[in-house]
Amino acid sequence: MTDDDAPRRGRRPAGQETRAQVLDAARAEFLERGYDAVSVRGVARRAGVDPGTVRHWFAGKRELLTATLGIAPVDPAAMVHQVLAGPVEGLGERLVRGVLGLWDGDEGATVRLVLPAVMADPGLRGLLPGFLGAEVLGPIVERLGVADARRRSSLVASQVAGLLLTRYLVPIDPLASMPADEVARLVGPNVQRYLAGDLA
Amino acid sequence: MTDDDAPRRGRRPAGQETRAQVLDAARAEFLERGYDAVSVRGVARRAGVDPGTVRHWFAGKRELLTATLGIAPVDPAAMVHQVLAGPVEGLGERLVRGVLGLWDGDEGATVRLVLPAVMADPGLRGLLPGFLGAEVLGPIVERLGVADARRRSSLVASQVAGLLLTRYLVPIDPLASMPADEVARLVGPNVQRYLAGDLA
Repeated sequence: MTDDDAPRRGRRPAGQETRAQVLDAARAEFLERGYDAVSVRGVARRAGVDPGTVRHWFAGKRELLTATLGIAPVDPAAMVHQVLAGPVEGLGERLVRGVLGLWDGDEGATVRLVLPAVMADPGLRGLLPGFLGAEVLGPIVERLGVADARRRSSLVASQVAGLLLTRYLVPIDPLASMPADEVARLVGPNVQRYLAGDLA
Repeated sequence: MTDDDAPRRGRRPAGQETRAQVLDAARAEFLERGYDAVSVRGVARRAGVDPGTVRHWFAGKRELLTATLGIAPVDPAAMVHQVLAGPVEGLGERLVRGVLGLWDGDEGATVRLVLPAVMADPGLRGLLPGFLGAEVLGPIVERLGVADARRRSSLVASQVAGLLLTRYLVPIDPLASMPADEVARLVGPNVQRYLAGDLA
């Protein structure tokens, strides 16, 4: 995602530094107060700009959130590249390791923000799975050349989504507090079966 | 759960029929309006009683929700019995089949109510996993006599939670629209590995 994604209408009240400042403020607000309680006005206040400046780039709260997701350190292409680098047998473990590498970084704060927001908003519900399917799982499964790529993708999604849920959001021990390496060893083979194994 | 769980203080303004009527109204309100928008007052109105009558049995909205969960057709003991009846090799598949049998019944309406509410409320977050762990997964894993029962339980929870999420709440096809039998065949062996398989 590049800065060119931001709509430009009317005069341009400030530089890209202000846009980044607004996104930083939005992320802090979302994490601190939760999706429901955040307002464009509150984000503007925190960023030290007026609400019109926020609205110049972002139509509303939902657009602020999706843009916020973009500043999380997620680079789908790099992730796909890393997962695909290596023998096919280790795909599942590398995928789990990659996922945990992203979300363990901020101790799951992003997951705790994104997942409830996505679930609470019917408009967002299709967005995140669609994005992950197209940008991450799709390219990985495609490379395997299997016939039932969509079925395998959705099965992988069911395990990865549940891992995010039980490691970060509704933490269930010991899974929630295990070292990432151990999770990868335990969960990896299950993801591997979905990706490349013999399915019924 | 029996009706005796309801706190009894002061006079008893109406019979158990009224309590059941309040729970029916609460369930309908939760499903129709979502956890956040529901109020004790609204439930009372729908049940045709005054708010004090609702509060006689339920301290507030959270208690209404947890009681509502109790009237979903979930009988943990029956579920455990059913999953354990049969050869060990089929445990995972029978568990998935049992879970889908519960939630497919109302087309996931209960999941769409419960999961977001649980995630939005820090007080509820520990409640549902705790309940399911103690009442369902615990007894199943215990019967297997494995040494690392808690670890296996949390892994099973990660797969089952993700299945609920991607089948009902943020539906990902084709998993979301598959017949239950096919899901059980696909996901069952993965649950089986967590329950009784060789873990790293």
